[in-house]
Amino acid sequence: MPDATGTSLLRYAEVQWFYARQMQQLDLGKAGPWARTFTEDAVFDVPTLPEPVRGRAGLVAAVERAHARLAEAGERHRHFMGMVDVLERADGTLDVRSYTTVYASVAGGVSRVHRVCVCEDVLVRVDGELRVAHRKVTRDDLP
Amino acid sequence: MPDATGTSLLRYAEVQWFYARQMQQLDLGKAGPWARTFTEDAVFDVPTLPEPVRGRAGLVAAVERAHARLAEAGERHRHFMGMVDVLERADGTLDVRSYTTVYASVAGGVSRVHRVCVCEDVLVRVDGELRVAHRKVTRDDLP
Amino acid sequence: MPDATGTSLLRYAEVQWFYARQMQQLDLGKAGPWARTFTEDAVFDVPTLPEPVRGRAGLVAAVERAHARLAEAGERHRHFMGMVDVLERADGTLDVRSYTTVYASVAGGVSRVHRVCVCEDVLVRVDGELRVAHRKVTRDDLP
Repeated sequence: MPDATGTSLLRYAEVQWFYARQMQQLDLGKAGPWARTFTEDAVFDVPTLPEPVRGRAGLVAAVERAHARLAEAGERHRHFMGMVDVLERADGTLDVRSYTTVYASVAGGVSRVHRVCVCEDVLVRVDGELRVAHRKVTRDDLP
Repeated sequence: MPDATGTSLLRYAEVQWFYARQMQQLDLGKAGPWARTFTEDAVFDVPTLPEPVRGRAGLVAAVERAHARLAEAGERHRHFMGMVDVLERADGTLDVRSYTTVYASVAGGVSRVHRVCVCEDVLVRVDGELRVAHRKVTRDDLP
Repeated sequence: MPDATGTSLLRYAEVQWFYARQMQQLDLGKAGPWARTFTEDAVFDVPTLPEPVRGRAGLVAAVERAHARLAEAGERHRHFMGMVDVLERADGTLDVRSYTTVYASVAGGVSRVHRVCVCEDVLVRVDGELRVAHRKVTRDDLP
C-alpha cells in the first residue's frame, strides 16, 4: 500500500499537479514548455510515433506536428490523466503508472472517447523540479 | 512549474476536494449548497446559458431548471473534473484551469460522453473557505 | 465545506492514492492484492453481482471471474475514479463518495464509455492502513 507519510503525500499532490499542467500544455500546443517538463535526453515511447523519440527537440517537433494535424482536421483533443500511482525507489526516482483518456471533439460536432491509454513514467528531479526521464504509453485498443 | 512548497501542495489537495464536493452537489441537484460554493456576486458564464448569471439566486434557479429538465428526460449527468492547474496571484486569489467531462446516462439505456469542457475559475477565500468568484466554461464541441 | 486542516488534506491525498492503486490492481486482475485493500469481512455490493459479496475469498473469486470473462471477450476495462469526496466521522471512519467511469476497449477495435457509476465506501484503518469495510456501487444507466 502507499507509503502514507506526510512527505510522500505532499509529493503525491505535487505529481498530480505536475501532470495537470503538463497535459494542459500539450493540449494547448505549447510545445516548448511541455518539452521542458521532460529531461534533456528523455525517451518518449508512444503508439502514435513509429519509434521512440529521444530529447527535447524531437518532443517539440512531435507536438507541433500533432497540433497542426488537429487544427487542420478541426478537432480538439484533451488528455485527461488519472489513477496516478507512485512508487519511490531508494534513490528518490519515482515510477509512476497512470491512465489517460483522450477525448476528441469536432467543432460543431460531438465529443467522444478517442483513446484509453496506460502511461508508465520515470520521474526524476532536476534543480528541484519534477521531470519525465522516460515515458512509455500503451493503448488499450491495440493488441 | 507548480510551486512545490508544503503550503501550496496542501492547498492543491484542498482545491481538488472543493471541486469534488461542488460537482457532486451539482449532480445531486442540491442547488442551495452548490450556490454557496460561489461568492454572493459570482459571475457564472457557461455555454448552456444565454448570458452570464450573476449572484446566487440566479445560480440556484439555473441548477433547479437543469435538474428538472434532466429528471423529465430520464437522464443523469455526472460532472467529472480533473487536470486541475492552479496559479496563485500575489494577493492569494487562485486562477484555476481544469477540464470537465460531462457523462450522460439514460435509465435503462447507455452511458456516453456528453460534453468535454474547459473550466476557468477565479477562487477566493471567504471566512477561510474557498469560493468561486468567477467561472468561465467553454465547450470543445463549439467553434 | 471540506475540513481544510493539514491533517485532513494529507489524508485526502492518501485516499486518492489508495484508490488509484486499488483500481489498477483490479484492472490488472491482481485479485489477491486487490482483495487485501478490503477488510476481512468487507461487504461489496455492486450491480454486476446478483447479491452482495462478504469477505475476501468472495472478492477474489469475483475479480478472477470478471477478469477471465474479459480476456475471453478480448476486452480491456479501466476503472477511472474521481470526484472523491470524504466525510470523517467522530471515530475516524471515512465515508467516501466518488464517481467511477469504466472504459472498455476491444483489441483492434475502439475504446468507449462502458459504465458511469457512483461508489459509496466506508473506509477504516487496519494496522495504520486504509481498508474498504463496505462498498456500494450504483450504475447511472440502471433505473
